[in-house]
Amino acid sequence: MEGLLQCPANYVPLTPISFLERAAFVYGNKVSIIYGNTRYTWRQTHERCLKLASALTRLNISRGDIVAAMAPNVPALYELHFAVPMAGATLSALNVSLDEHALTIILHQLRPKIIFVDSELVQLVSKVIHNKNNTHLLENHHDHQPLLVTIRDVSLDRQTQWDLEVREYEQTVAMGESDFQAMGPTNECDPISVNFTSGSTGTPKAVAYSHRAVYLNSLGLILRYNMGKSPVFLWTVDMFRCNGWCFTWAMAALGGVNVCIRNVSAKIIFDSVQLHKVTHLCGKPTILNMIADSPPVEQKPLPSVVDVIIAGAFPTNPVLKRVQELGFNIVYGYGMTEALGPALIRPWRSSQHHHHDDDGNDRDDHNLKCREGLHNITLEAADVKDPTTMQSVPSDGETIGEVMLRGNTLMAGYLGDAEATQKAFSRGWFRTGDVGVRHTDGCIEMKDRAGDAIVLGKEVISTLDIEAILSSHPKVKEVAIVAQNDVVAGQVPCAFVKLKEGKCSNAEEILEFCAEQLQKAAMVPKTVRFGDLPMNSTGKVQKSVLRERANAIEKQCP
Amino acid sequence: MEGLLQCPANYVPLTPISFLERAAFVYGNKVSIIYGNTRYTWRQTHERCLKLASALTRLNISRGDIVAAMAPNVPALYELHFAVPMAGATLSALNVSLDEHALTIILHQLRPKIIFVDSELVQLVSKVIHNKNNTHLLENHHDHQPLLVTIRDVSLDRQTQWDLEVREYEQTVAMGESDFQAMGPTNECDPISVNFTSGSTGTPKAVAYSHRAVYLNSLGLILRYNMGKSPVFLWTVDMFRCNGWCFTWAMAALGGVNVCIRNVSAKIIFDSVQLHKVTHLCGKPTILNMIADSPPVEQKPLPSVVDVIIAGAFPTNPVLKRVQELGFNIVYGYGMTEALGPALIRPWRSSQHHHHDDDGNDRDDHNLKCREGLHNITLEAADVKDPTTMQSVPSDGETIGEVMLRGNTLMAGYLGDAEATQKAFSRGWFRTGDVGVRHTDGCIEMKDRAGDAIVLGKEVISTLDIEAILSSHPKVKEVAIVAQNDVVAGQVPCAFVKLKEGKCSNAEEILEFCAEQLQKAAMVPKTVRFGDLPMNSTGKVQKSVLRERANAIEKQCP
Repeated sequence: MEGLLQCPANYVPLTPISFLERAAFVYGNKVSIIYGNTRYTWRQTHERCLKLASALTRLNISRGDIVAAMAPNVPALYELHFAVPMAGATLSALNVSLDEHALTIILHQLRPKIIFVDSELVQLVSKVIHNKNNTHLLENHHDHQPLLVTIRDVSLDRQTQWDLEVREYEQTVAMGESDFQAMGPTNECDPISVNFTSGSTGTPKAVAYSHRAVYLNSLGLILRYNMGKSPVFLWTVDMFRCNGWCFTWAMAALGGVNVCIRNVSAKIIFDSVQLHKVTHLCGKPTILNMIADSPPVEQKPLPSVVDVIIAGAFPTNPVLKRVQELGFNIVYGYGMTEALGPALIRPWRSSQHHHHDDDGNDRDDHNLKCREGLHNITLEAADVKDPTTMQSVPSDGETIGEVMLRGNTLMAGYLGDAEATQKAFSRGWFRTGDVGVRHTDGCIEMKDRAGDAIVLGKEVISTLDIEAILSSHPKVKEVAIVAQNDVVAGQVPCAFVKLKEGKCSNAEEILEFCAEQLQKAAMVPKTVRFGDLPMNSTGKVQKSVLRERANAIEKQCP
Repeated sequence: MEGLLQCPANYVPLTPISFLERAAFVYGNKVSIIYGNTRYTWRQTHERCLKLASALTRLNISRGDIVAAMAPNVPALYELHFAVPMAGATLSALNVSLDEHALTIILHQLRPKIIFVDSELVQLVSKVIHNKNNTHLLENHHDHQPLLVTIRDVSLDRQTQWDLEVREYEQTVAMGESDFQAMGPTNECDPISVNFTSGSTGTPKAVAYSHRAVYLNSLGLILRYNMGKSPVFLWTVDMFRCNGWCFTWAMAALGGVNVCIRNVSAKIIFDSVQLHKVTHLCGKPTILNMIADSPPVEQKPLPSVVDVIIAGAFPTNPVLKRVQELGFNIVYGYGMTEALGPALIRPWRSSQHHHHDDDGNDRDDHNLKCREGLHNITLEAADVKDPTTMQSVPSDGETIGEVMLRGNTLMAGYLGDAEATQKAFSRGWFRTGDVGVRHTDGCIEMKDRAGDAIVLGKEVISTLDIEAILSSHPKVKEVAIVAQNDVVAGQVPCAFVKLKEGKCSNAEEILEFCAEQLQKAAMVPKTVRFGDLPMNSTGKVQKSVLRERANAIEKQCP
């Protein structure tokens, strides 16, 4: 059409840098960050990020470069989420629990020009970088070793040895200029960050996010969790996990308060909630266990309801109940690194929460939450499809298919692995690999993670369904169900059970409970093993390890 | 960076059509539209829009075509906001109060292929189309007269004469197929709609919006007005005004309830609020006058607080006070058609609402609202600049400059007028033409609409400032201040005053009040004239007419 124009006045690349610029203007005097005795306002945070971006430019960071950071949820890591893209570069926040071997692999993949490291982790990172075997691996594109910048922490009692030749974070901020012109992306689809999937199987993948994706996902999150009114956000989710599920940027969009913490414990949660009037926190379900199991003396009354957004393995009913009784409102998300964190509200399975709907029918939270909305507003579509025909499964709550997503809030791809990217996005949809069904009301229910489901002839059994029931057994603390090969049936369920402290049980008791509670006989495990469950660094049960054990058992006892 | 991919799985053009598709899936059984006895669910609305889009395609609508509509806020006009872009075309919703002359000019500009017309307006539109003088003007690009489709209304008592040869809306919907594949934009910057500015001066301009802009603005609106929890929206703002300020699309994003109405009155507002538990309504400040002046018998108690979003001329303090007492929460927006409606929260001037801030200082709502945020989250920047140097004015609350905006939620341009578009967007900013200042806390205050300010040597006086004070006079119902030429001072203020019914006053009394209340002597009008104020079709005082009168007076009485 004639007369229309696309120009800098009406087309600005979507980037969360805009959120910070606006926050400095609109919420300038409001508190942005609280960390111990440190407090910043949004104007200060903006100024510090500009200075840091300016300093990065002086340290030869330019477009296309990667800056890595390895630190707990301290203010510096928050600032890097803005400063690095303001210098035109891409941030990779690394898991603080990586060991020497894993860190070496990841740094080799990233080849960062600069690594910002928390003082407690400097020794580890130095060791990796100065290991002679790694020298060649770690040279970045400019044939230099990455520059180390230490993030010192005044709150730490035991100070680590200081290598005076190592650059320091605050000194670096101080060398920058606050009138720096933020660069931002030339194209909104340029990458802003790289996050590593902890994936239950195989080697970690480098998942890149675009400026456009994280901008839109931040808005989608705010709307999804109804965070409109000056939220106070307690940083219990790691910023290295999907950039703190994009809450790093979303908090700037809202001008909310970031309560930064080094470690997560029930005491810290209760103390922070009471002191700073926290409204939201999120993370792994283990947070709920922490809260539920905390000694009553630590459980301070909440000033008002606190929304807790959880994603990962499903918590047990007693834990859910206890945490709700303490005044927390739990919302359950389903997502993955490739979808920038939780992208769907995951339906409740708990049978403990019944409500009456408008029609007077008794509905459990499952359906109630479904009606509240499923996929986030900025994700264009979520479906369950036959991965071969790409047809949607019927909405019968039974036919199993693959959960697939499509939309602007998905990753830009796997860095350095075009083949894996192509495969993940084949035929117009992101393949989660997860198994699910579609209910009659249209809602999606995730049944099992990729590769975990048990295949019994034509029937597919969800290990999560069995775990949900078994975890409600009064003596059971944790449970994992995996597929065990079976000559007759193909695969059968095998249960690994960790009992609560001081509790005693045996296979007969567990199996009897299963037979009573489970819908189908085929869901009852054929074997029960007791003991600790193997976890990976993100707190996920390593089902691949258990599958090996289950099948080793089979060989031992034929 | 290598390995990344932009493909249909992770890049979807931003369009509000996604909102409707998601609403059908996520809020399928929730009510979408209430109109008299008519109710639809989101699944039904989606299906009806698909059928209508399919029918439009059968009627030869294709990409780049314009479909016009002239109707009050009935469900059909709501549906057209989705169905027309779903057929790949652009919607132009026309002002229902256009006269034959204005409609002829606008249709000539648009050349729509189809015009949807409310049954009450069919005669007018037919007359324009069948006027032999217009035949040539109205031929569209395919050398056909536009097709008329009548929107019949079962709620109307007096049925207009039916021309059996004229196509009818419901028949048109019925001829479409619900399995139609929605088209959407090929590029998210393609136009979705054209809205005409009623502009206080000159001829109306055809303002085009892009899919991207309205998608983002819808999310920005929801966040700005904190509409997260299943809102019930009463349609008191015309859908032909910036597409109902983009609330047409925003309501689909939220899965809220649209309460459609043909006319706006205090009785209809109170009845609807009580019956449907309305949570939000918006529009011109005259809505507030309507509510404040309604007979007590009509003023039903509100089930809960109703948010009223207002933009336009500033309401008087007594009206504000009365409406707030009745339970409405008033939010004041500042914007224009080119910014897709209200883009900034406009500060309060009222001195009646005082609050204590965190520092214990007494602040009026003005400052309080500023701190709540100024420009919407999806608008990248708002500033006050010297239009020649393009430098920001100092934040001193005094230095006057031009209010300028920049961001993705601005128009795509003026349809068919590349020159006007270039001018409006020159040097990277949208020029509002409005005069404003920047306060010490960074907040922008609009001082006067383009061309209305009074220039006294180097000083610029805001007519809005004088009007705000004068409208608080107990005998004054409406007031308008315009510039009157003066040999000595250059320009001086001239007041046009409409008194309340049954009240008597004279120039001396008014001027004495002004001298007491106004900050500067130069703000006191030199002349006062009593009587009705001339209004344009959108309820704005026609200051250009008053300026002519003021200067004619001068000539008569030298």
